[in-house]
Amino acid sequence: MSNQNRPSGRAADALRSIRLTRNYTKHAEGSVLVEFGDTRVICTASIEEKVPGFLKGMGQGWLTAEYGMLPRSTHTRMDREAAKGKQSGRTQEIQRLIGRSLRAAFDLEAFGERTLHLDCDVIQADGGTRTAAITGAMVAAYDAFSELVESKVIAAVPAKHFVAAISVGVYRGTPVLDLDYLEDSDCDTDMNVVMTDAGHFVEVQGTAEGEAFDRATMDRLLDLAQQGIFEIVTLQKKALGLTR
Amino acid sequence: MSNQNRPSGRAADALRSIRLTRNYTKHAEGSVLVEFGDTRVICTASIEEKVPGFLKGMGQGWLTAEYGMLPRSTHTRMDREAAKGKQSGRTQEIQRLIGRSLRAAFDLEAFGERTLHLDCDVIQADGGTRTAAITGAMVAAYDAFSELVESKVIAAVPAKHFVAAISVGVYRGTPVLDLDYLEDSDCDTDMNVVMTDAGHFVEVQGTAEGEAFDRATMDRLLDLAQQGIFEIVTLQKKALGLTR
Amino acid sequence: MSNQNRPSGRAADALRSIRLTRNYTKHAEGSVLVEFGDTRVICTASIEEKVPGFLKGMGQGWLTAEYGMLPRSTHTRMDREAAKGKQSGRTQEIQRLIGRSLRAAFDLEAFGERTLHLDCDVIQADGGTRTAAITGAMVAAYDAFSELVESKVIAAVPAKHFVAAISVGVYRGTPVLDLDYLEDSDCDTDMNVVMTDAGHFVEVQGTAEGEAFDRATMDRLLDLAQQGIFEIVTLQKKALGLTR
Amino acid sequence: MSNQNRPSGRAADALRSIRLTRNYTKHAEGSVLVEFGDTRVICTASIEEKVPGFLKGMGQGWLTAEYGMLPRSTHTRMDREAAKGKQSGRTQEIQRLIGRSLRAAFDLEAFGERTLHLDCDVIQADGGTRTAAITGAMVAAYDAFSELVESKVIAAVPAKHFVAAISVGVYRGTPVLDLDYLEDSDCDTDMNVVMTDAGHFVEVQGTAEGEAFDRATMDRLLDLAQQGIFEIVTLQKKALGLTR
Amino acid sequence: MSNQNRPSGRAADALRSIRLTRNYTKHAEGSVLVEFGDTRVICTASIEEKVPGFLKGMGQGWLTAEYGMLPRSTHTRMDREAAKGKQSGRTQEIQRLIGRSLRAAFDLEAFGERTLHLDCDVIQADGGTRTAAITGAMVAAYDAFSELVESKVIAAVPAKHFVAAISVGVYRGTPVLDLDYLEDSDCDTDMNVVMTDAGHFVEVQGTAEGEAFDRATMDRLLDLAQQGIFEIVTLQKKALGLTR
Amino acid sequence: MSNQNRPSGRAADALRSIRLTRNYTKHAEGSVLVEFGDTRVICTASIEEKVPGFLKGMGQGWLTAEYGMLPRSTHTRMDREAAKGKQSGRTQEIQRLIGRSLRAAFDLEAFGERTLHLDCDVIQADGGTRTAAITGAMVAAYDAFSELVESKVIAAVPAKHFVAAISVGVYRGTPVLDLDYLEDSDCDTDMNVVMTDAGHFVEVQGTAEGEAFDRATMDRLLDLAQQGIFEIVTLQKKALGLTR
Repeated sequence: MSNQNRPSGRAADALRSIRLTRNYTKHAEGSVLVEFGDTRVICTASIEEKVPGFLKGMGQGWLTAEYGMLPRSTHTRMDREAAKGKQSGRTQEIQRLIGRSLRAAFDLEAFGERTLHLDCDVIQADGGTRTAAITGAMVAAYDAFSELVESKVIAAVPAKHFVAAISVGVYRGTPVLDLDYLEDSDCDTDMNVVMTDAGHFVEVQGTAEGEAFDRATMDRLLDLAQQGIFEIVTLQKKALGLTR
Repeated sequence: MSNQNRPSGRAADALRSIRLTRNYTKHAEGSVLVEFGDTRVICTASIEEKVPGFLKGMGQGWLTAEYGMLPRSTHTRMDREAAKGKQSGRTQEIQRLIGRSLRAAFDLEAFGERTLHLDCDVIQADGGTRTAAITGAMVAAYDAFSELVESKVIAAVPAKHFVAAISVGVYRGTPVLDLDYLEDSDCDTDMNVVMTDAGHFVEVQGTAEGEAFDRATMDRLLDLAQQGIFEIVTLQKKALGLTR
Repeated sequence: MSNQNRPSGRAADALRSIRLTRNYTKHAEGSVLVEFGDTRVICTASIEEKVPGFLKGMGQGWLTAEYGMLPRSTHTRMDREAAKGKQSGRTQEIQRLIGRSLRAAFDLEAFGERTLHLDCDVIQADGGTRTAAITGAMVAAYDAFSELVESKVIAAVPAKHFVAAISVGVYRGTPVLDLDYLEDSDCDTDMNVVMTDAGHFVEVQGTAEGEAFDRATMDRLLDLAQQGIFEIVTLQKKALGLTR
Repeated sequence: MSNQNRPSGRAADALRSIRLTRNYTKHAEGSVLVEFGDTRVICTASIEEKVPGFLKGMGQGWLTAEYGMLPRSTHTRMDREAAKGKQSGRTQEIQRLIGRSLRAAFDLEAFGERTLHLDCDVIQADGGTRTAAITGAMVAAYDAFSELVESKVIAAVPAKHFVAAISVGVYRGTPVLDLDYLEDSDCDTDMNVVMTDAGHFVEVQGTAEGEAFDRATMDRLLDLAQQGIFEIVTLQKKALGLTR
Repeated sequence: MSNQNRPSGRAADALRSIRLTRNYTKHAEGSVLVEFGDTRVICTASIEEKVPGFLKGMGQGWLTAEYGMLPRSTHTRMDREAAKGKQSGRTQEIQRLIGRSLRAAFDLEAFGERTLHLDCDVIQADGGTRTAAITGAMVAAYDAFSELVESKVIAAVPAKHFVAAISVGVYRGTPVLDLDYLEDSDCDTDMNVVMTDAGHFVEVQGTAEGEAFDRATMDRLLDLAQQGIFEIVTLQKKALGLTR
Repeated sequence: MSNQNRPSGRAADALRSIRLTRNYTKHAEGSVLVEFGDTRVICTASIEEKVPGFLKGMGQGWLTAEYGMLPRSTHTRMDREAAKGKQSGRTQEIQRLIGRSLRAAFDLEAFGERTLHLDCDVIQADGGTRTAAITGAMVAAYDAFSELVESKVIAAVPAKHFVAAISVGVYRGTPVLDLDYLEDSDCDTDMNVVMTDAGHFVEVQGTAEGEAFDRATMDRLLDLAQQGIFEIVTLQKKALGLTR
């Protein structure tokens, strides 16, 4: 049923079409192209046989994430961060969020003194790049650990739960799920939620870009987020062949 | 009534002692020392008679924030960011949060082509530096605008609402208000909430550092935050002489 | 006919399969995915309505290029240049080469005070990324200028010639065309040649990685390069619909 | 007796009111707020259980200093050095001066393979911040070493002498002691002198900002400095409870 | 016989006057002032008793080069790279070229775990600074290794061949040897060639700054380069007293 | 008369041999090679037809200085500052000193909206590079202004006085003039003095590297400095042909 209110015609609680393409590039241990509508992010998972200094000799692993956007992934070209010589505050905020979210998904003590590097690079942006990145990184990480299992380095994929992420927000007065760029650039509130497949919160980051919002709206946004995340986790598990 | 559970003996819903000292230094248009227990932050508000390039000629103002910690404001000395040549991701995340929160408090179109710079520098850290910073910056900004009113540059302080901030979290299984350092470094969940004096949300940033948390916990944390913020707004207004 | 000498079995003068996919992403004025075998590079062309300071008021345009590799486009993960805070010497060398090559293809005086930004980002590397980048950037730039023609901003695409690029080298004693990664990492000589569709040289960059090479070898390498470039230019024109 | 010549009415050879507040913050081994009139600097001394690479295994300690100003410690807001990504030449000059001065005060061979970090952060500037910083850092360092004595790590505070610092200058033709901001920004000559409690020179840095000055003036300035430093050393020792 | 065509009156195949002054400064193991006409470059060779991390324990040496220009070595003053905080792309390109060229001249396995640092600093620029640098660095490196031979650290200078470099180009339609600044800034093609004393190619870097050039021109340029390099190698050997 | 005490055999009050070679390079408006014994510094003066932003439209000129050392100007090779991406604190301290000293020599209001850039680059270091730099820069600046006089841009060289610089120090208990490297690296006190030809102080920077020094020593050092500077100014004027 089409919706007059949203530019895309989606219902308030409808996700965009979400696709997860595994083995997207050939070198990485895990490599996923994730698409949330027109938003496209390449997520690779690389295993390195060492840990950062602060963990040396402690017998546990580490997981870290980096995020980037191709200069013309956006409507108007952005400066290339490598050329400017620094990552923006926004970039750092997002890659810290991805790292925390994925560390919540895996048992760092169960994969030895190794580091899992997650690289999330936005090829095309249309809103929701950070939530797409977390969602795709979960699958890429799972694939990378599966490779360690296959080569008998570890006994099982050290996943504690699945994590997925989605944005919710208030667009023209209505709480909606999975904002695209047109909505994102014109909304009053934007909230990113990261949840486990058990429906527990890993991260909540909400910002009132226009009007501050009341508790009832907050409650409705959290409901929408949970519904969306359950749908996305199903897609993740399907993509990995864990369910049908 | 003392509480066995919290290191400080505070009740689960008790704030630390909060103090706001105005005119703490002499040069800034607004200058506040804010204390949340042993956490001490100097917040200054400086008015500059120009706006960033992207706002030139648009007849409106801008508000921006920076955050820093003295190297030995913490238990062990941190490297000085100016000497390292860059601000950490954490620093940038916090100063972006402060900026967004305070932009929500004031009407940027009502103070002409001026920039309000908020500088929040932590002298002593004991948990909750970012929430103390937002709380103190509100008062410093109010003072700076009041000076513009007194010198008849603008007609009234362009405040849309008061904003204040507090942290809540789950410490040893119990939702608590206003975490100090001992709690913060050993909690499962840490959430920072920024709200208006009307009880509307400006920012919510929650992270499950240990276990992911369920919706009931989320609800309890938001209740605690609202109660704490109402108490803090009262202190802000008292400090400014707006109420008794 | 398969070749015992080359890991891929290609004949000494055989290119890899080359593909040019236009309109690969949706925001850029020109956007091409170029593939030389397993090497995949996204080339976007962005038009900006201004020129660098040194050209202001001179009534002519400018063209500039940037190059990057996704951290896990390679066999082992490379550090992200944006995170390290600087582009490597190799990166700068390559993007300067792309810029000079493409400036040779277009008449900078014929498109007004505009800058064409070419961004070449390697998604997957298997040797020859810089020659693929130049080849794809030519097509992306052509598309971007065509858009200006369609919107009647300029009268015609200001191309002076087509340019394309290919590598040649000495692999296990034999001069070969279009080195892939296995050859590139074990060759004695590596030369990148950029030529116009008239067979004239735009750039020649040859390096004896192992043994220095004699004049007869040089002559053979230049022959191979010219043959390969003629084949590639045909593909470029076909992709653009300029020939069948 | 008031002086018509100086903005503050001080006699030519009168110091401003100088205060030293120990234990100003709670984490540092030594922590002093030093005030020279309206100039306020927080000096902390932090002990780290290692030395820089060039001293490893040599059985001696090291002492180093850093200096900073809060952005709005001054009349008009200065850019934050951490945000700009580098320390100014002035900042580096001052922190090198503080480091050399304090290394002259202590016996580096007498406290083992430890580093004493001195951080001098200006909260409010009104002239003479570097001399205040040296003066306060001496007391903070003494306190930090005293803590090592108390915990029986070393046998005695390894002080060779006390050092203190003061500025002298030529203001409107008259040599004066301890320039405040109004004098400093309008003087012909500005000289910073660091001396031991025995009246021996550790550092002399004089600059003719306006007219070059003659030898007789130099002699008078050095006399004033010595008198001032003797007064300051007395205050330092009193603050530490070493004399009454 | 003077040439109407070239600003200097040189014949098309005539080098400028080339001079190599050994022991130009006193500290370096090898130190050469090289002059190609008015182009003057100081080349020093410094031996360090360690290798970069990636070679540790492999029993072989390393050779690396850096290049710089004094700010006023050029017609108009350039910004100082140390002050700007980064080396330009051009500088990096040149120092990488010098490094590769000289690594081709020496047997890195024959001088133990040592690094030879070549520093090429342009005192006065008049075209051809990179070819002068390579030419001078060869002699400085030879001197540095000779010192190791004299002190009986190694048995013989580990030279595989001599390398020298020269530029060739097309100036006003004529292929010419050794472009000076006037020619360089107004030529259609500029090519730098590095060759061994056996006439084998080490590096070729040609750029069509104006018109792309055909194969016949390429052949003529390579002939000129070979002739010039044979003359230069003779001068290098004479300077070192290896021939008369 | 030779001196047993000093490594060079110089008398306590003897300068090294000082040479000033004008027109050392051809592009700069002023270009001087200054030698203090084995210390050799190239000083160039470049005139730019604009002033920094803070002086725009004020009708006066500006003078600024930069300092650098070639990596192997010293006994062991130093890292290249351009490659490290920043100038050391020592470099900045020295170039600020050179700038202040030369600004004291010239009337900035008398040469229009122009900037004089002084670049002092150390080719070979043997102690006293900063004093040699100031001494040489004075002559280079004079030459640059003379060129403006010759081309009738200004009426006269805007020199207020001559400035020159020398180091003095306490070497093995004896105050000596003009320390060379052997003395400098083993002295108790090192003081750099910049004076006008009238014997007035422009800068005094003294440091007790070992023992703090008393007032009598200070007086003797200032006497030595004045004597040395008078000798150097005579050499400067002779080099410029102002006296015989």
